[in-house]
Amino acid sequence: MGMTMTQKILAHHANMESVRPGQLIMADLDMVLGNDITAPVAINEFPKFGKQTVFDKDKVALVPDHFSPNKDIKAAEQCKCLRDFANDHEITNYFDVGQMGIEHALLPEKGLVGAGDLVIGADSHTCTYGALGAFSTGVGSTDMACGMATGQAWFKVPSALKFNLKGKFNRYVSGKDLILHIIGMIGVDGALYQSMEFTGEGVANLTIDDRFTVANMAIEAGAKNGIFPVDDITLAYLKEHCRKEPVIYTADDDAHYETVFDIDLSTIKSTVSFPHLPSNTRTIDEVGEVRIDQVVIGSCTNGHISDLREAAAILKGKRVAKHVRALIFPATQKIWKQAMNEGLFDIFVDSGCAVSTPTCGPCLGGHMGILAAGERAVSTTNRNFVGRMGHVKSEVYLASPAVAAASAIAGYIADPNKVMEA
Amino acid sequence: MGMTMTQKILAHHANMESVRPGQLIMADLDMVLGNDITAPVAINEFPKFGKQTVFDKDKVALVPDHFSPNKDIKAAEQCKCLRDFANDHEITNYFDVGQMGIEHALLPEKGLVGAGDLVIGADSHTCTYGALGAFSTGVGSTDMACGMATGQAWFKVPSALKFNLKGKFNRYVSGKDLILHIIGMIGVDGALYQSMEFTGEGVANLTIDDRFTVANMAIEAGAKNGIFPVDDITLAYLKEHCRKEPVIYTADDDAHYETVFDIDLSTIKSTVSFPHLPSNTRTIDEVGEVRIDQVVIGSCTNGHISDLREAAAILKGKRVAKHVRALIFPATQKIWKQAMNEGLFDIFVDSGCAVSTPTCGPCLGGHMGILAAGERAVSTTNRNFVGRMGHVKSEVYLASPAVAAASAIAGYIADPNKVMEA
Repeated sequence: MGMTMTQKILAHHANMESVRPGQLIMADLDMVLGNDITAPVAINEFPKFGKQTVFDKDKVALVPDHFSPNKDIKAAEQCKCLRDFANDHEITNYFDVGQMGIEHALLPEKGLVGAGDLVIGADSHTCTYGALGAFSTGVGSTDMACGMATGQAWFKVPSALKFNLKGKFNRYVSGKDLILHIIGMIGVDGALYQSMEFTGEGVANLTIDDRFTVANMAIEAGAKNGIFPVDDITLAYLKEHCRKEPVIYTADDDAHYETVFDIDLSTIKSTVSFPHLPSNTRTIDEVGEVRIDQVVIGSCTNGHISDLREAAAILKGKRVAKHVRALIFPATQKIWKQAMNEGLFDIFVDSGCAVSTPTCGPCLGGHMGILAAGERAVSTTNRNFVGRMGHVKSEVYLASPAVAAASAIAGYIADPNKVMEA
Repeated sequence: MGMTMTQKILAHHANMESVRPGQLIMADLDMVLGNDITAPVAINEFPKFGKQTVFDKDKVALVPDHFSPNKDIKAAEQCKCLRDFANDHEITNYFDVGQMGIEHALLPEKGLVGAGDLVIGADSHTCTYGALGAFSTGVGSTDMACGMATGQAWFKVPSALKFNLKGKFNRYVSGKDLILHIIGMIGVDGALYQSMEFTGEGVANLTIDDRFTVANMAIEAGAKNGIFPVDDITLAYLKEHCRKEPVIYTADDDAHYETVFDIDLSTIKSTVSFPHLPSNTRTIDEVGEVRIDQVVIGSCTNGHISDLREAAAILKGKRVAKHVRALIFPATQKIWKQAMNEGLFDIFVDSGCAVSTPTCGPCLGGHMGILAAGERAVSTTNRNFVGRMGHVKSEVYLASPAVAAASAIAGYIADPNKVMEA
């Protein structure tokens, strides 16, 4: 039996000819990631492995992005823990406030993940790097500690689902709508411990930022990872950002997939996940009148430059509704500066948005935009569980940057096409 | 006996010919201010006054600036309290995230304070507006509630200290150094319940932003208010920002001052307040080697455009020291955009600073830059009490934007002249 793209990467990193679904393997790691929530736990566990230092100081990345700039004393102590560990072990890839960004946008931008890599991160959205043809997945803090100490991690080889894409998105529809549509279709456990492998001629019509968004949310369907084939778009991105030679794995023709989904991108509509699950989706024509209090545009899911451009194109010359707070979170300092230099921040500020320095902020109910009881947010982030952005009686509606921007203007969840026609 | 400038404003607003120090008066209010910490308490007290609504919906300003964008659920509830009250009472001057700024920079910018006005605010740094020749002072939340209900407040008429200024600042010396020098000289209770009246030919050499900074910190010497004469610089500022006709009060020639201080601005050196009191000052040549972890540039004290320009001029083409987080807090959305359009944000980001949306943030240990145990910050804010910016074992050193920027580069408290020569 042939192997999927994911299985091939795992086999190679386990120094094995082949692997089969369900098999337990030990694999070599190309990068081990942690943030200010998870890494302190790993750092605390690290001495138990009896190693003087990390397995490779260039293959550990520490990014204090969740509660930074330091929300409170506890956050300050957590970030200090990362900083001290990075100093003590001369970790190359420690990125502090002012040099940083949200981890899953920062690592690709800094060229720390290449095609064919195997990456673990103590953060569930580590699956983002599948956009670049890498295998990457979220792990617990003790696995992170083990990875830092030994350069290895164990995996159960996942089976796979194939998403065969064709066609092109309509205007104002993007990768976010695709992944929300898929999660709505298969459910939050629809890909449990499986690979979501995206393929087909439609992949060429997805920008690299679309792919980051789709892979990022694979975990929201319960997937072990999401992964895209390496094509010219991937190679162009890697050429710009990554010095490593790309290693290209392709699925065997006879690779086994549990299910194959055929999706025509031209049929995807703007999609919104209603509270309190990403799978609770409605298309934009089904949402009804949902008045909102806050809009969040950004995060590891949708804080890329193309996301900000899409939002700005809709906000340009318009005003955020009086009762709405609109918050913009570019994912990295580099994206922040690029957006500024492209004039996007002029548009955002003129329309009544607040632009933050990069931080995970409100996405996880961290800080910088927490909701009170009864408040509703439209957010380009990745989870809308009960209390995710604040009070247990608040609500989060997941959407694309286009829908979020249109909703900010309308004051209720809105179709970008209608807002632009108005 | 003649009256001071402050006494004249109070007498006029009490509809009295004259007042004398120590006298208790009831005076009419031109503006009543509250923020997300203090206004909820006032709003809770408001019904006890038995009024249907506020005395004048154009003369109340509500600014959720301290813990916004909402730090946490409690902050979200506090801001919601302001928002709901503003909606219920049709308060004209409610400024939410995206339209706002730090209250004491925002009110002058929006033209809500004019020369000769009498303003109370439930925030100690309300004394800032003395820069415009207004009497303004901080009050408690119940006084704010009374002010909103009745349009009046009681005052004990203050006696006064005169600061007779001459000369000009040397390069990299600014209003912040002047006020820190004064507080170092007279102590944190050196002007207890008195007016600090600034006068003399040297006033003409202070920019309006210098004056905002000096008046802002009058409270740090225990003063009831700080106040500047209205001159061409004031009038130019008011012409640009405020539609109200300025009402100019000048001190009588025979006004009584408890003490007169003569200060030659050319003798003022860059000054730093060491932990844990603003009065614990040293000139920059006396600071020794103080290694720092964080720099904060901004706040109601030093978040004006000229402050950001001064910092940028020093940071341009240089890098923030690797072990330092440098955080920039423009005081208002307007200043934010102006700084961006002047290219200051390019300089900040290129040098390794993070630029925040306007918020009081770390100044009061709120959020967005809290210190861990043992950490030290150089900050352009106004207070360095124990635990002010985080852990009780952290330290805050108050300084000018120039010293803060130079220190960010050096990684320890540094003289801007030396950093620029290096």
